[in-house]
Amino acid sequence: MDPQPEATGQPLSSDEIGLIHAWWRAANYLSVGQIYLLDNPLLREPLKMDHVKPRLLGHWGTTPGLNFLYVHLNRVIKARGLNALFIAGPGHGAPGVVANTWLEGTYSEVYPAIGPDEDGLRQLFRQFSFPGGIPSHASPDTPGSIHEGGELGYSLLHAFGAAFDNPDLIVACVVGDGEAETGPLATSWHSNKFLNPATDGAVLPILHLNGYKIASPTVLARISHTELDALFRGYGYLPIFVDGEEPDAMHRAIAAALDDAVDRIHAIQKAARDGGVTTRPLWPMIVLRSLKGWTGPKIVDGQKSEGFWRAHQVPFTMDKPEHLGLLEEWMRSYHPEELFDDGGRLRPEIAALAPRGDRRMSANPHANGGALMRPLRLPDFASYAVPVVHPGESDGEATQVMGTFLRDVVRENAQARNFRVFGPDETASNRLQTIFEATDRSWDAETIADDVHLDPSGRVMEVLSEHCCQGWLEGYLLTGRHGLFSCYEAFIHIVDSMVNQHAKWLKTAKEVPWRRPIASLNYLLTSHVWRQDHNGFSHQDPGFVDHVVNKKADIVRVYFPPDANTLLFVTDHCLRSWDRINVIVAGKQPSPQWLDMNAAIKHCTRGIGIWDWASNDRSGEPDVVMACAGDVPTLETLAAVSLLRVQLPELKVRVVNVVDLMTLQPNSQHPHGLSDSAFDALFTTDKPVIFAYHGYPALIHRLTYKRTNHQNIHVHGFEEEGSTTTPFDMVVRNHLDRFHLMGKVIDHVELPDSAAAYAKQTIDDQLVEHKRYIAAHGIDMPAVRDWRWPSGA
Amino acid sequence: MDPQPEATGQPLSSDEIGLIHAWWRAANYLSVGQIYLLDNPLLREPLKMDHVKPRLLGHWGTTPGLNFLYVHLNRVIKARGLNALFIAGPGHGAPGVVANTWLEGTYSEVYPAIGPDEDGLRQLFRQFSFPGGIPSHASPDTPGSIHEGGELGYSLLHAFGAAFDNPDLIVACVVGDGEAETGPLATSWHSNKFLNPATDGAVLPILHLNGYKIASPTVLARISHTELDALFRGYGYLPIFVDGEEPDAMHRAIAAALDDAVDRIHAIQKAARDGGVTTRPLWPMIVLRSLKGWTGPKIVDGQKSEGFWRAHQVPFTMDKPEHLGLLEEWMRSYHPEELFDDGGRLRPEIAALAPRGDRRMSANPHANGGALMRPLRLPDFASYAVPVVHPGESDGEATQVMGTFLRDVVRENAQARNFRVFGPDETASNRLQTIFEATDRSWDAETIADDVHLDPSGRVMEVLSEHCCQGWLEGYLLTGRHGLFSCYEAFIHIVDSMVNQHAKWLKTAKEVPWRRPIASLNYLLTSHVWRQDHNGFSHQDPGFVDHVVNKKADIVRVYFPPDANTLLFVTDHCLRSWDRINVIVAGKQPSPQWLDMNAAIKHCTRGIGIWDWASNDRSGEPDVVMACAGDVPTLETLAAVSLLRVQLPELKVRVVNVVDLMTLQPNSQHPHGLSDSAFDALFTTDKPVIFAYHGYPALIHRLTYKRTNHQNIHVHGFEEEGSTTTPFDMVVRNHLDRFHLMGKVIDHVELPDSAAAYAKQTIDDQLVEHKRYIAAHGIDMPAVRDWRWPSGA
Repeated sequence: MDPQPEATGQPLSSDEIGLIHAWWRAANYLSVGQIYLLDNPLLREPLKMDHVKPRLLGHWGTTPGLNFLYVHLNRVIKARGLNALFIAGPGHGAPGVVANTWLEGTYSEVYPAIGPDEDGLRQLFRQFSFPGGIPSHASPDTPGSIHEGGELGYSLLHAFGAAFDNPDLIVACVVGDGEAETGPLATSWHSNKFLNPATDGAVLPILHLNGYKIASPTVLARISHTELDALFRGYGYLPIFVDGEEPDAMHRAIAAALDDAVDRIHAIQKAARDGGVTTRPLWPMIVLRSLKGWTGPKIVDGQKSEGFWRAHQVPFTMDKPEHLGLLEEWMRSYHPEELFDDGGRLRPEIAALAPRGDRRMSANPHANGGALMRPLRLPDFASYAVPVVHPGESDGEATQVMGTFLRDVVRENAQARNFRVFGPDETASNRLQTIFEATDRSWDAETIADDVHLDPSGRVMEVLSEHCCQGWLEGYLLTGRHGLFSCYEAFIHIVDSMVNQHAKWLKTAKEVPWRRPIASLNYLLTSHVWRQDHNGFSHQDPGFVDHVVNKKADIVRVYFPPDANTLLFVTDHCLRSWDRINVIVAGKQPSPQWLDMNAAIKHCTRGIGIWDWASNDRSGEPDVVMACAGDVPTLETLAAVSLLRVQLPELKVRVVNVVDLMTLQPNSQHPHGLSDSAFDALFTTDKPVIFAYHGYPALIHRLTYKRTNHQNIHVHGFEEEGSTTTPFDMVVRNHLDRFHLMGKVIDHVELPDSAAAYAKQTIDDQLVEHKRYIAAHGIDMPAVRDWRWPSGA
Repeated sequence: MDPQPEATGQPLSSDEIGLIHAWWRAANYLSVGQIYLLDNPLLREPLKMDHVKPRLLGHWGTTPGLNFLYVHLNRVIKARGLNALFIAGPGHGAPGVVANTWLEGTYSEVYPAIGPDEDGLRQLFRQFSFPGGIPSHASPDTPGSIHEGGELGYSLLHAFGAAFDNPDLIVACVVGDGEAETGPLATSWHSNKFLNPATDGAVLPILHLNGYKIASPTVLARISHTELDALFRGYGYLPIFVDGEEPDAMHRAIAAALDDAVDRIHAIQKAARDGGVTTRPLWPMIVLRSLKGWTGPKIVDGQKSEGFWRAHQVPFTMDKPEHLGLLEEWMRSYHPEELFDDGGRLRPEIAALAPRGDRRMSANPHANGGALMRPLRLPDFASYAVPVVHPGESDGEATQVMGTFLRDVVRENAQARNFRVFGPDETASNRLQTIFEATDRSWDAETIADDVHLDPSGRVMEVLSEHCCQGWLEGYLLTGRHGLFSCYEAFIHIVDSMVNQHAKWLKTAKEVPWRRPIASLNYLLTSHVWRQDHNGFSHQDPGFVDHVVNKKADIVRVYFPPDANTLLFVTDHCLRSWDRINVIVAGKQPSPQWLDMNAAIKHCTRGIGIWDWASNDRSGEPDVVMACAGDVPTLETLAAVSLLRVQLPELKVRVVNVVDLMTLQPNSQHPHGLSDSAFDALFTTDKPVIFAYHGYPALIHRLTYKRTNHQNIHVHGFEEEGSTTTPFDMVVRNHLDRFHLMGKVIDHVELPDSAAAYAKQTIDDQLVEHKRYIAAHGIDMPAVRDWRWPSGA
């Protein structure tokens, strides 16, 4: 093992330490001020209850550690001209992060109402955790932030996402020791196997081991040094430990550690970039063991506070008069009079510690990724079209076709290095393997001779962790790049909560005037519920769409392209969009192709429409509307229509296909929603609508309950009946098959009794034959397998 | 560091190895047979295409490794009389697990149609991944399984959950190296800090390092031995490595490793139980590095198969005639004629390797936990009642009261040791701290003098990982015990996908005749959306309920008790239930108490009802129905009603409170659903219903769209407008506050224009005053803070 390294930078002078210590005191002072004070920000008069917020919210515990790291990072940034981002992983770190951005001047630049003076300080203090103000996390309104840190576990993933393809960037990522207990964080240390030192930037993880969560010790703080050291060496890092509580010694130790870490990072990058070293390097990381609530009150009401979990939140409330003195004593211990001038401005010798302009972490343009974003170069999607002479006459594999398009997206943007594809070891399984003609899987761990498509420079990010895929992609997008996450439909639920948080970030960021739009988060959900017949019930869940539609309407889009050409259109559209979460659900199995490219463009542009070629209502009023959303429901609907055409040739059937699910919602609720009149024109106001839907039926009701004809809409979809069985049996079990759809039509249209009875008998016979056939042969009966849309129809 | 240990068991004799090897061959043979064959199970005639399944599904890659471990575990179980469970973490391990359960005889015992003979073998082969048959995971129909392994990442958590409070049990948990990349698995290694060697059983993790996922190498297979060793030592284990491909040597090596591991486990337990050792022990774990698809075809179509990812699934399909010979050669390489007698029965000398009766891992009663489950001893919940003389006159903290009840549940079941409470460091934050009067937090890592409520025997499981809480609890329930998971409402989404999988397990297990019901999975979601005003938008998401209602109706229950006494009733009810997922949403903040215990019992028993004391429709037809579900919506509704009473005394208002959300669904869809006539009796058929709901409004529409009066139901709920603000401003931002509810009433009832205008003006004035007040003071205006239900009303 590599020995504990020696520091290689110059030791700090006492003057330097004094200034750094002054900045730290200032940041700590501002942090306490934000948590406690409404007024009297510089304590120019004795503190009174009137100066204190009536409702104390916020968290002190992690803040002094963040402040300590921030000023020391500034020192190395300035000394070495680094291009660095700061990610605050611990929850509720905003008092510290905001304090530093104010001290750097950035906060007042982007929010002129909060100036770099006493009045600005008053506003700064007041707004924190105050109605109409800012939250206690590094939310989108925080300059320099790409990571809110409200829900814990994703800091390191965001850091790596930011570092990919930014070779000059160093992302300093503070990981809380509470956060470190989460699953996503625990696996994200392995991101170092997916980072290329030649073409990516560096992540410097800093585990902030302050020992406690809300009310308990943390696991990593209560294992031996030997275990802790082994754990991070096992993860592939060289841990550099900084441990203590005496400020002077700690300033020296952290400075040496940062110098050492940056030296190592530069040496690694030089070896890879100039020396052609291709083996995975031993990246440095820092373990900072410091007191929770460091520099705060040691004892409150007779109980230990500094260095204990009681310092986690607000160390004391103001319900006791003696706490006023405690607060004043605490705040004065930072000697604000030495830090701010008479106007409340940070003294210039301290302010000079900040890097200049964009080199301030709070002003780094990577943290406002939209400002750096360049649109993707996209090849003409229409040139990848599958030929469709007659609807349904030939089969195609939608995602395979999309893969060819994506291959060329990779190629077109190879030089810009701003597009990556993410997925949990499923790129090939999801039939996107043509991408591998243009690039490989990113891989910086060991390789053997038999390996294929592994390369440190690969642009396909595969790891068996949906959390990693999602977190990396978020970090990549937030720093101004583009990407696509392809996933098995059922397992995208693994990142439900991450999607929530990203949606919340997007919503809030749109309200921040200086934030620029970022590229959309695009999902391809394939290997979907209807074709997991070989993987069984555990792989069958179409509920992610239900989850995302709870998010704000201007953020969420959901697409169900029924074939390859529509998928091409939708993919192109999504890759051009911004500030959205786009969910595309599409199959990977060979299935009939319905629309040629012209028809696909027209259909997708509207998002919903009547398929005239499949309808026989001659643009008049139909007897029944057969609606469908999703590739399998479309197939079953058309099969039902073709059978009805034979059985009940007089019946006027209209086929409506839905690509853009949001068209179903009223336009008052979603910008893509149809007007009521447009909806009525498609679905009629009184005819039965048999709606075959890809997912849980309730969603269609939820989207359409306000429509005129809602009471006549009958939805067939996934009824949570899954198994290992044949593809057709899957739809039969959930009553989404052609026969049950036909049966529902017959139940809801007016027919002569004899015709209805005959048709029902035919259906029942077919279902009995289906059961018999699969039990005997284990595959679907020829009548189903060989069915094709009649070309003369 | 502890040196690599020496094996302490007796070396295997050649005869023993021969028999073990024969079992392994038999299990591998049965695994291949399940994947490929329809008929000719013992290859009594030359293999023909007709004998092969027309559709080949299944996974071979991990199977030989599982089989290898299974037979060797059987050896130590028999030799030492162990009580052991087997958990197959790698995906698609069913062919192996099922093969071993058939070889042990258990499969034929529970499924007599699949006998221990040639005909049984034929059925066994045929049913695998065949319509109406069994899936490729160790699903509930697999004897001995408590872990399906369809969605990866939870094996080790289930193993620890099973081991808690089962001091005699050893849970052998095979972790796939693909699975090991997931977040939940990566953090679950730390479960060893929460296991008490004195009173819990042991988990023996076996990392199955076969090198590949679907189409890529795995991370842990491609780091150095030094890093791998360090990683597991860092996690607090003593890794024992078994590495190779030559069967004879591997049999000896794994036997020695298992002997060593079991010796160490017993030594640890003895030291803790007899010697009183309380420091966390160094538990052994095994790293088995073996070939993917071991013993399968080495080369297929000129490409490497055994020992490579191409062996992951079906190593070859039957699309080429020469593959028939390849398959026959492969299967005959196991020499079935040496393994099975003329009747197709496993030869007795091989069968004798299996442990007897319940000691077979496939017959271990812990894996059919319901069979061992004893109901909880529950104190009389009514004795914890909060006194309520007049509705709303006094405040109470619902979860605090529940905590007192739970404290006594812990006490009553202390001897049975079958109840635990789980939560991500939030038990106290969620105001359940009274539990700590009865027990402590489980903690087997280091402690310091200042620590409080940490104990290796603690029954409160806290770790900052919702995944760990969920996975441990699932394992605990599946082995016949009881528990409750208390969580911040927003962050329960972290385990959305785990809940899916558990719901699927419950649904399938109910269809397995020999599985007994297990205790329900109970959630308390508190620190909910309406009182996260201090934590901000990231902590505000009530969508978990939307997620769970997609699951089967007979599994899901959702409760919104509006106060402490109703929460007591619901908690008691949930702790008595089985085979369900119960979601309880309740607040932790001081808020008005509405119902005394008698009224609470009546109200909760029905699940929904008119609050006569709050209504003034004198049991006649109301002008408007004010419905509410959730504590904050109930408060705002009653405040609106009390204001309406003053403003519009003539208006007849009916108040309906919903505790059991599922009552809203038609009884055709959910067993708790009201009949249409009962629903109409509450909600009328034509009067406006202003429904104040805790979560996303769409859910109420989704549940009620079939009801007669649906078009008049207007739902107010969370509109995804969150922030750090005051409690009342949170409801105002989402239009769930008393004033907006009043406004909606006025919009939908017939009133003289002047009365309506006056009332509207009053509302507007109040909302303006609200905004002004919070901007000035940062807290809610007195009119809101001091509002109480008028006791004379």
